[in-house]
Amino acid sequence: MNITILGGGGFLGRKIAERLTREGRLGGQPVTSLTLFDIAEPPKPSAAFPVTALAGDVVDLPEAAVPAGTDVIFHLAAVVSAQAEADYELGRRVNLRGTDAVVDACRRLVAAGGRPPRVVFTSSVASFSATQADTLPDEAKQVPGNSYGAQKAAAELILADASRRGFMDVVTIRLPTVVVRPGRPNKAASSFFSAIVREPLLGLEAELPVPDTFGVWICSPRRAADWLLHAAAMDTSGMGLDRSLSPPGIETTVGNMLKALDSVQPGASALVRRITDPTIADIVGTWPPAFTAARARALGFVPHEPMEDVVRAFIADDLEATRRDRGLIA
Amino acid sequence: MNITILGGGGFLGRKIAERLTREGRLGGQPVTSLTLFDIAEPPKPSAAFPVTALAGDVVDLPEAAVPAGTDVIFHLAAVVSAQAEADYELGRRVNLRGTDAVVDACRRLVAAGGRPPRVVFTSSVASFSATQADTLPDEAKQVPGNSYGAQKAAAELILADASRRGFMDVVTIRLPTVVVRPGRPNKAASSFFSAIVREPLLGLEAELPVPDTFGVWICSPRRAADWLLHAAAMDTSGMGLDRSLSPPGIETTVGNMLKALDSVQPGASALVRRITDPTIADIVGTWPPAFTAARARALGFVPHEPMEDVVRAFIADDLEATRRDRGLIA
Repeated sequence: MNITILGGGGFLGRKIAERLTREGRLGGQPVTSLTLFDIAEPPKPSAAFPVTALAGDVVDLPEAAVPAGTDVIFHLAAVVSAQAEADYELGRRVNLRGTDAVVDACRRLVAAGGRPPRVVFTSSVASFSATQADTLPDEAKQVPGNSYGAQKAAAELILADASRRGFMDVVTIRLPTVVVRPGRPNKAASSFFSAIVREPLLGLEAELPVPDTFGVWICSPRRAADWLLHAAAMDTSGMGLDRSLSPPGIETTVGNMLKALDSVQPGASALVRRITDPTIADIVGTWPPAFTAARARALGFVPHEPMEDVVRAFIADDLEATRRDRGLIA
Repeated sequence: MNITILGGGGFLGRKIAERLTREGRLGGQPVTSLTLFDIAEPPKPSAAFPVTALAGDVVDLPEAAVPAGTDVIFHLAAVVSAQAEADYELGRRVNLRGTDAVVDACRRLVAAGGRPPRVVFTSSVASFSATQADTLPDEAKQVPGNSYGAQKAAAELILADASRRGFMDVVTIRLPTVVVRPGRPNKAASSFFSAIVREPLLGLEAELPVPDTFGVWICSPRRAADWLLHAAAMDTSGMGLDRSLSPPGIETTVGNMLKALDSVQPGASALVRRITDPTIADIVGTWPPAFTAARARALGFVPHEPMEDVVRAFIADDLEATRRDRGLIA
């Protein structure tokens, strides 16, 4: 399996790269090469197969990023929610023109006689609108309340059409809010969902811009990686025209997240300060707090682990690296 | 009201231009200028107000096509269904990059201190998938089975987001198949729906690629113009994030269309030859044959007229011009 990760330097891209190099196989087949592409050259994990790291703009995707013989493309390159809201041009460019570039790279492979590559695309809960009372079925219409969600929903349509035409074989995963992200707070409107767990575990304060009763649909980075790897290898022959899936995430509240935090590290949530932020609350307030995810369950996507395990997974997988990256330990 | 019609040389564009110049008003306000833009310079109707006709590529939309002070833009410029299926690049360019160009023209107006213009965008039943047994509700998810429909659905998302951001104030009308179109058969997969009425009325044979029982959701050009003009002037304040509407068309079958033809001109349907065409049948076979159109009815969109009136309207409005254009009379 020759595999490319676009956005290979990002958080999920690095998780996938690490899993592939560690496991050496995808869907029972040996991995034969891995190409990592991002705006800055991604770190190269050591592997038993050749790994290439490339820097560039996804809109001008170089042939070397999707070489002849590519079997799987993880298309994770994106401009995130608050950033796409703040900079319309940038969001449109990366989230839409970048997707066109992926389509064209696949068309080139197919035109040269290659098989249509499996493309695993990450879309988002932000492509839906809902109230806090809703549980969305798989047939729910996407009515985005933010530019990021609109661009992701539009890209889903373009990629599904490209699949129908035989340019690629796409599976789109509409990721829940991924918690706990390592690193620093970033420009995603959802950044605080991770910060309220991560920062207290680092001994730092975090700001909570919504009430404790706020409902949210989340998943751990481990489970997100499981789903993306499953999407890369699954049988798509029964999917029909609709190539998008809402995977079985965790339906919880901010208050329950803080309870899970305290159950793993008693008293940690005392570092969370309630500071209402209407801009952030307006964006995340339109994201659905729950999905039935029936189709994804039927297609073999593993359901979520308990919230406490999500906290423990962060401690096991990412806490030390985060401390080091943030200069909190030598 | 300063009005621009993109695709002003096309069939619906010319109908709208004619209505505006004849009536001189839109939504109770006097029309003060009309700008017609198309790939070839559109014909200029005589009018009591200035009319400008411009030729160009919608992707490189010139400032003169959407001048300062533009109140309403009819965005009808499109690559049609069979053509977008045959030429992926062209469809993507016009149907998606053309829509981006309209967004940017509106952003320019707003950045210069103008009001966000009303944009009336034509989408299509081809953006949905359904079986012949379905009647789609307003909440139905768009799962297109062709590139034209995918590009239209993606453009709807981009335009709704641009409205939310205050760049424009869009109303998207998902037009039924427009019957009876004048002129010659064209590259739209739906071309035969008009041809089976038009050609016999011209004394010519027409080919029918689907069975007589085939269900189809249609509207007359008159009613399409009514709807687009209503969309240009209606109150959008209660629409929320979803700016798209399925208007109340005619739920009929090809057989019923031929019956209506015969009731207006006895024996005319004898000129229709049944010649199965799987390519055409595959495309139109995924288009829904009926919609509830409840939301559009509530928003004041006028329901369809009987099928016989559609045939009579073609005879009254377009038959002579079609005879002349086709060289069938001097």
